[in-house]
Amino acid sequence: MADPWQQCMDYAVTLARKAGEVVREALKEEISIMVKSSPADLVTVTDQKVEKMIISSIKEKYPSHSFIGEESVAAGEGSTLTDNPTWIIDPIDGTTNFVHRFPFVAVSIGFVVNKKIEFGVVYSCVEDKMYTGRKGKGAFCNGQKLRVSGQEDITKSLLVTEMGSNREPATLKIVLSNMERLLSIPVHGIRAVGTAAVNMCLVATGGADAYYEMGIHCWDMAGAGIIITEAGGVLLDVSGGPFDLMSRRIIAASSRAIGERIAKELQIIPLQRDDATN
Amino acid sequence: MADPWQQCMDYAVTLARKAGEVVREALKEEISIMVKSSPADLVTVTDQKVEKMIISSIKEKYPSHSFIGEESVAAGEGSTLTDNPTWIIDPIDGTTNFVHRFPFVAVSIGFVVNKKIEFGVVYSCVEDKMYTGRKGKGAFCNGQKLRVSGQEDITKSLLVTEMGSNREPATLKIVLSNMERLLSIPVHGIRAVGTAAVNMCLVATGGADAYYEMGIHCWDMAGAGIIITEAGGVLLDVSGGPFDLMSRRIIAASSRAIGERIAKELQIIPLQRDDATN
Repeated sequence: MADPWQQCMDYAVTLARKAGEVVREALKEEISIMVKSSPADLVTVTDQKVEKMIISSIKEKYPSHSFIGEESVAAGEGSTLTDNPTWIIDPIDGTTNFVHRFPFVAVSIGFVVNKKIEFGVVYSCVEDKMYTGRKGKGAFCNGQKLRVSGQEDITKSLLVTEMGSNREPATLKIVLSNMERLLSIPVHGIRAVGTAAVNMCLVATGGADAYYEMGIHCWDMAGAGIIITEAGGVLLDVSGGPFDLMSRRIIAASSRAIGERIAKELQIIPLQRDDATN
Repeated sequence: MADPWQQCMDYAVTLARKAGEVVREALKEEISIMVKSSPADLVTVTDQKVEKMIISSIKEKYPSHSFIGEESVAAGEGSTLTDNPTWIIDPIDGTTNFVHRFPFVAVSIGFVVNKKIEFGVVYSCVEDKMYTGRKGKGAFCNGQKLRVSGQEDITKSLLVTEMGSNREPATLKIVLSNMERLLSIPVHGIRAVGTAAVNMCLVATGGADAYYEMGIHCWDMAGAGIIITEAGGVLLDVSGGPFDLMSRRIIAASSRAIGERIAKELQIIPLQRDDATN
């Protein structure tokens, strides 16, 4: 049987590449910054322009599909996941990096049907790395098949995470004490390149053994989530239970053993779900 | 007058590129790991092989020069800086990254005469980025001139640092509370790519506004230090006073204002100097 979503995936790759060109061009110009939820939560006109471009292109081709986009949600649109084919879009994952021209900035597109991720596309546009994952068909970067490290021993692991954009003292304390506990196991180290999608793709390549974070959104995880699992990795909730795309929290690991070991150390930050009705 | 050290610098670039090829080749093979000062302080045969290759090549050409190399010092050689022309070498800056194939690994060569850095070469070999800085002649990456951001407002800054390889609870507490204080100013964010030399080069490109760290060594800083200053940045001690190459601590900033503001927040970790006589 032909793959019913292959055409959508090819289109997502084309759009991500086109969006990446817009982002790369914008990096050559003056960037003006607006603030969202905190002084460290930034947005630019390029985020908004790229998201509009992606969504309007898809709508034209697939008018019955649904959308959850970071900037559309910021502008007041809902983010409830239905069974309808749904494109989950982060036009610029790593906006703070983009603003500073720190060279890790990704366009992320996830495609979800019946609440399951069917494919994901993450284009790290300064590095010119196109990561893709299609359910049951593997994960690739620029055509090269990806495989997680398979590491099961936490004391030999390299982790990736972020300090996030929340500056509330209580939240920051938990973020840093979680890092302290993990470093003390000990692990080999913790890295942070400033985008959830690229951090997760680094786990998919085997370059890091696990990524965890709380406070991110479905658009940060939908694209890279399937890239991790198709590279042989696992997605878990930070409690160690099943991963939930709308929960704003994730452990993406090269093995279940490492994922569960990380879950044991994490103190949980209370968060409002992406699909909470206000 | 002709530049007395230009020939040495050209040779350093050639050697760094050759060393980078060895590192890239080694990344394709099985990597076996040895532990140094802590379970997170790693070394491989490639570190040792690359350092031997660099030092023996230079010795042949410049037999009167002195050397301080990470692996030579680990093997018991001294690291006292004299006025003699001295090559300060880190064969693999980011050994933990190397071990994990996390894609930031640098060969770092600094050249010091009368205790002043004359030039520095940092080759980020997976990215294939050759950073160079020559006193009075600017800093470059792959031939492109580098310029720091010039940012003076800490609340608009992006910082780079590392959690380091020291896992002693008291040290880890200071490392993380320093991060907490800086994040609370607030700053836009903190990134960590896992090598001091590449972190510093990212400041030189303007991609980050400052780097700070305690516990690193002269071979982590000598190459990139001059790249930062030649890109218009400043080097300070973590106390805010003058930078000291053998002190194992640094703030490398895009402006004095940002550097001094960071110094105000940092609690200092007691460290034995690189040139301490045991």
